[in-house]
Amino acid sequence: MNNQKSIMNVGIAGLGVVGGEVARQLMTRGDALSFAAGCKLNLTAVSARNRDADRGIDLSSLQWFDNAEDMAKIDDLDIVVEMIGGSEGVALDLVRTALSRGKHVVTANKAMLAHHGTELAKIAEENNVGLLFEAAVAGGIPAIKTLREGLAGNDFTRVYGILNGTCNYILSRMEKTGEPFEDVLADAQRLGYAEAEPSFDVDGIDAAHKLTILGAIAFAQTPDFDAVSIQGIRDVAAVDFAYANQLGYRIKLVGVAEPGVAPRMQTCLLPLNSQLAKVNGVLNAVEFHGTPIGSTLSVGPGAGAGATASAVLADLIDIGHGRLTYPFGRPIAALADGSAVERRPGDDTPFYVRLMVIDQPGVLAEVTKVLQEHDISVESLLQQGRAPDDVVPLVMTTHETAQTSLESALAAMAELACVRAKPVAMPILFDDLEG
Amino acid sequence: MNNQKSIMNVGIAGLGVVGGEVARQLMTRGDALSFAAGCKLNLTAVSARNRDADRGIDLSSLQWFDNAEDMAKIDDLDIVVEMIGGSEGVALDLVRTALSRGKHVVTANKAMLAHHGTELAKIAEENNVGLLFEAAVAGGIPAIKTLREGLAGNDFTRVYGILNGTCNYILSRMEKTGEPFEDVLADAQRLGYAEAEPSFDVDGIDAAHKLTILGAIAFAQTPDFDAVSIQGIRDVAAVDFAYANQLGYRIKLVGVAEPGVAPRMQTCLLPLNSQLAKVNGVLNAVEFHGTPIGSTLSVGPGAGAGATASAVLADLIDIGHGRLTYPFGRPIAALADGSAVERRPGDDTPFYVRLMVIDQPGVLAEVTKVLQEHDISVESLLQQGRAPDDVVPLVMTTHETAQTSLESALAAMAELACVRAKPVAMPILFDDLEG
Repeated sequence: MNNQKSIMNVGIAGLGVVGGEVARQLMTRGDALSFAAGCKLNLTAVSARNRDADRGIDLSSLQWFDNAEDMAKIDDLDIVVEMIGGSEGVALDLVRTALSRGKHVVTANKAMLAHHGTELAKIAEENNVGLLFEAAVAGGIPAIKTLREGLAGNDFTRVYGILNGTCNYILSRMEKTGEPFEDVLADAQRLGYAEAEPSFDVDGIDAAHKLTILGAIAFAQTPDFDAVSIQGIRDVAAVDFAYANQLGYRIKLVGVAEPGVAPRMQTCLLPLNSQLAKVNGVLNAVEFHGTPIGSTLSVGPGAGAGATASAVLADLIDIGHGRLTYPFGRPIAALADGSAVERRPGDDTPFYVRLMVIDQPGVLAEVTKVLQEHDISVESLLQQGRAPDDVVPLVMTTHETAQTSLESALAAMAELACVRAKPVAMPILFDDLEG
Repeated sequence: MNNQKSIMNVGIAGLGVVGGEVARQLMTRGDALSFAAGCKLNLTAVSARNRDADRGIDLSSLQWFDNAEDMAKIDDLDIVVEMIGGSEGVALDLVRTALSRGKHVVTANKAMLAHHGTELAKIAEENNVGLLFEAAVAGGIPAIKTLREGLAGNDFTRVYGILNGTCNYILSRMEKTGEPFEDVLADAQRLGYAEAEPSFDVDGIDAAHKLTILGAIAFAQTPDFDAVSIQGIRDVAAVDFAYANQLGYRIKLVGVAEPGVAPRMQTCLLPLNSQLAKVNGVLNAVEFHGTPIGSTLSVGPGAGAGATASAVLADLIDIGHGRLTYPFGRPIAALADGSAVERRPGDDTPFYVRLMVIDQPGVLAEVTKVLQEHDISVESLLQQGRAPDDVVPLVMTTHETAQTSLESALAAMAELACVRAKPVAMPILFDDLEG
């Protein structure tokens, strides 16, 4: 209804799995998509490294650019779809140039937005064009639109979720089969669920990029990746899943953003009946808490050509209708400086703690003495199976404890003669969406 | 960014639980909401039956209208929020008048939209104003925005969900405790989860209103409530939950809309590991299947003052920004006539069937003969516990079967001497979102 132009010329830079799918959708479903957009979405230009790759679509009628940035410089282009990836380099140059020249940009590049989102949003604002990135966070879940529009009337108290499908797959599989992390990772790599260099996923960095973006929008701050405290999933052992289950919990890598607290990626325990705990396998989920909504959750594929292309198409359709919002929900001048926000420690939480101890009399007394010295109170304790003079797990859950107290208690426990491996600790997170 | 006016005057008709909460939000969080809307959202007028009720907010500075329609006639009002309810009468007159006089309308009135949505959308279109109803379907889930915008680039193959919190609560509770329907309903009424006159909820009518709206948007048709085939939850017995679980399923009231098939509200079985089966208690859920997205699901509170108010506020903010869409996603002229769509029968599905039979030799032969005569093949059969000459349940699941074949087989089985109660049958629905 606010349609501004009858034709929008679109150029795609990067024709990998997602870029290729977006091109295919625009070429094979052009009429339906144009109808949905209220204007003709006209794919006219592409840029990719390899001109000869077989992408299953005929691109011969399109303008081809070997250099993506050159594409952003042509006059008769309205929208640049950036599908190159990487926080710096070609992608960043392309987006800067496109926005500066008054072209709308649609991107899935979470790393670039987490590191350079403020600068790019400012350029978009100055040039009165859109910078849209629904595909950057949990592809198949319209999380950005939900946060920025669907729940725009809320004062958010927490935004959190399962933001990396690879980690969720690995954790779900370890819980189901009892296999160790390394074996499941190797299998995930073989199946194509994990990269050959898995650190980006399993150390929580990819999820932290997404969390940075969600937190910026929810709490009206410029995105600040450096503020995120990041923990991955490498420390979890198969035995932890069994204990967690027995205690009524499931282990998940969850990103949590709250106002005035450093955002954190944490491997944590969730009650089995919380909605977030029920999201398994490669699925992603994003949950929003606020006033007056209470809580609401979206679940879907976080990656994949189709899901990500769907998000890109939604952005193109919004541009077609002239339904533009500020990239982070408000003008840059109205956002707090994310790097300067004063942050209090997070609320005290209960923790799950697993020690590997030598099975001897007196061990429990030594361990509980350390806890007492750090003013930590135990909620439950499991010491199952006997193996005299051998190493066995000792599992505890604590009552609400400050992160700092817990860390110093863990350091002290690690020094005990009876403790034979680095203690493992994970916070227990309660979700108000249960059912 | 498309802001059109610097002040929008808002009037609310109906100050019940939700209307009162919207008023309270606008009065106590006015600055934040106006900032989010990009213009001042100025509550200036209200209409309700009882001027003296204590609503916890001071309305004395506002214009008061005893007659809601009179409010829609004043000049200095930009948006009417209709919170009266009911498909006809005052609410319908108010909305017609408001739209005709060029005022935007925000409503939560699913019954009115299911019955008169086409007419109202046409008036809105002619007057170039918005008719927004995010609150009408699953209050705390931004389902309308997700369908109309977040997934706008998709060709939908199915939209379905748990659309009535009262039914979901009753079914979840019956499964958990084994109590019969009547007892759980009475308790839900006592707790305020069900109305004194429960038919609207438990017979599936309320959910069918929501399904009508979702189907219209997803499949570009005018809303046609009369096309929906509606079944409620009264026939389910506590014993069905135990059998369903044993077979790997959970019983839910699910609304299903598919292109070219009559939309249906059905009490059905879902695999335990499907995401929809994991949504319990009063929660609602809406799942979208399409190309290229695959599947995505949203879960949240379906009712309640806060969740519904959040949806109304989102609509007000969209109006503030001038982010208007056609009510059913496209101009009325571009929608198919919902009442004239030719509908094929739904796909064949497996069914769960429970017979109450007399425990005597030969019963199984009689029953399976009927199935054979109707060309229905059995996938599993449970005949547990013995009670010679007494009545016992005989439970079966079938392979894919046409609804019509099943119905005629059920009618034939009901005639058998050994069958002592009306057979109970429910389709088994598979969800592609598992995890």
